[in-house]
Amino acid sequence: MTRPLIAVDWGTSSLRAARIGADGAVLEERSSPRGILTVPAGGFAAVLHDTCGDWLADPAALCLVSGMAGSRHGWQEAPYCPCPAGFGELGDSLLWLEPRRIALVPGLSCEQQGVPDVMRGEEVQVFGAMDLLGERAGTFVLPGTHSKWVRVVDGRVQSFSTFMSGEFYGLLRQHSILARTLPAEDGELDTSAFTHGVLHAQEAGSLLRSAFSARTLSLFERLPQKAQPSYLSGLVIGEELRLRPPGTGALVLIGSSALTQRYALALGMVGARTRALGSEATWRGLAALAQTLQDA
Amino acid sequence: MTRPLIAVDWGTSSLRAARIGADGAVLEERSSPRGILTVPAGGFAAVLHDTCGDWLADPAALCLVSGMAGSRHGWQEAPYCPCPAGFGELGDSLLWLEPRRIALVPGLSCEQQGVPDVMRGEEVQVFGAMDLLGERAGTFVLPGTHSKWVRVVDGRVQSFSTFMSGEFYGLLRQHSILARTLPAEDGELDTSAFTHGVLHAQEAGSLLRSAFSARTLSLFERLPQKAQPSYLSGLVIGEELRLRPPGTGALVLIGSSALTQRYALALGMVGARTRALGSEATWRGLAALAQTLQDA
Repeated sequence: MTRPLIAVDWGTSSLRAARIGADGAVLEERSSPRGILTVPAGGFAAVLHDTCGDWLADPAALCLVSGMAGSRHGWQEAPYCPCPAGFGELGDSLLWLEPRRIALVPGLSCEQQGVPDVMRGEEVQVFGAMDLLGERAGTFVLPGTHSKWVRVVDGRVQSFSTFMSGEFYGLLRQHSILARTLPAEDGELDTSAFTHGVLHAQEAGSLLRSAFSARTLSLFERLPQKAQPSYLSGLVIGEELRLRPPGTGALVLIGSSALTQRYALALGMVGARTRALGSEATWRGLAALAQTLQDA
Repeated sequence: MTRPLIAVDWGTSSLRAARIGADGAVLEERSSPRGILTVPAGGFAAVLHDTCGDWLADPAALCLVSGMAGSRHGWQEAPYCPCPAGFGELGDSLLWLEPRRIALVPGLSCEQQGVPDVMRGEEVQVFGAMDLLGERAGTFVLPGTHSKWVRVVDGRVQSFSTFMSGEFYGLLRQHSILARTLPAEDGELDTSAFTHGVLHAQEAGSLLRSAFSARTLSLFERLPQKAQPSYLSGLVIGEELRLRPPGTGALVLIGSSALTQRYALALGMVGARTRALGSEATWRGLAALAQTLQDA
């Protein structure tokens, strides 16, 4: 890489930025609570300058912004790049806000089972993970509010599926009949209750059905109150991985260690092997994309 | 039947009562908003007398109360009657509040896939439906906040499963990311969007996954805003019936006509035959139970 990179991951609730040297090393990181929901229309450039104006002062710097900043409610709408898509398609689809200086990385879209699916930001993490691991194929799992399961073939994202797992957990945790008996705080993970939930999800075949067991087990005093959040988490994550694709290759988990550890535990119970990566995947993905642009 | 019956269906949010003649005919019906959540501990007898004290003045009358009034937060806790259970087991398990005068009908419990399941009130509807239809076996479906699928063999409930369908619809409708784009009112059923949802649920294999399609179809302007509640309803009901038991007999739907019509439409799409009954099943079930007591 010959130009320094300002890598920005701008999501709904936060903004993270990194200054990356010409050799690809992360020199400095910053984060701010100025997620796109807090930024008024027309205010995005100012917030970016507030956060890393000193870095942008370098005339050689390239700035790539991934995440929800490229959505309809963000800085400007960067239309989704359709799958299959690799670095080439992604680089060709950048939305340049300042020519050769600042660009929005579009998300990806795909069509599965007759309906569209979308992601914004996760694609950069997947490409970063491929680069970090030296892999050009496999299944990448990004747990979260809206988990993504991404299938990569020959260096390009072929297709992916979204599971609203984190959101369903929150809905059940806070707003459902289960909320009446759950403790105020989630507390530490109770591994036994979690694994019980994961296994029951495999048998029950639908969260619509398995979720009620959190209530009945409590009613018959077969699940201590403080173990209920872990059991419910097991039900939801177990439901998500019930639909895991067939295959024996290790799944690559990308996310916070708290979440990837929980997914690795659940996947291990059903016989799947995993490897895990954290936020380094985002910076590596943007750096690799920048490299591709400069090589072109 | 030789004694008049005061049949009471006392649920969480309402109380319904019927006076039933010695010949089994429903002579008069009443309803009140005094569901168990509105009644203070110790106040249940007074509310019952407020609602049908004139009927109770008949010294010959028998009063049977089904529903959540027999739960821990109701009049008094009537322990669940374990499955398999028919009229005999249910009659033997009544909790008499006044000897031979007023009794709480217990709910049923069963154990499936290593977890307990429970119902309170629906068992009376199932027995009533059996009596009305002259059936002693089959699958009975009671759609609602917590839908019940009940398997009856030789006149006894063998087992059942609860699906939190109505509750999941409400959670997604009101509290999830989908709520942002849904219209304020559900409006009339859009049959085309509903059937699309039912069919997609069969393919997607989990509501965790299919629910996101309500958002993406809207994002790509492939689902008009006013059709979104119908599509979401189709996803949720379609998810529930994805796990329907194998078999070619007609399923018996019991519930409000708005709900049973929707379920009949969805079940017809996946090749299942149905028959439907309404609230008459509750009164018939309590009358048939009273008959059993007097025959004994």
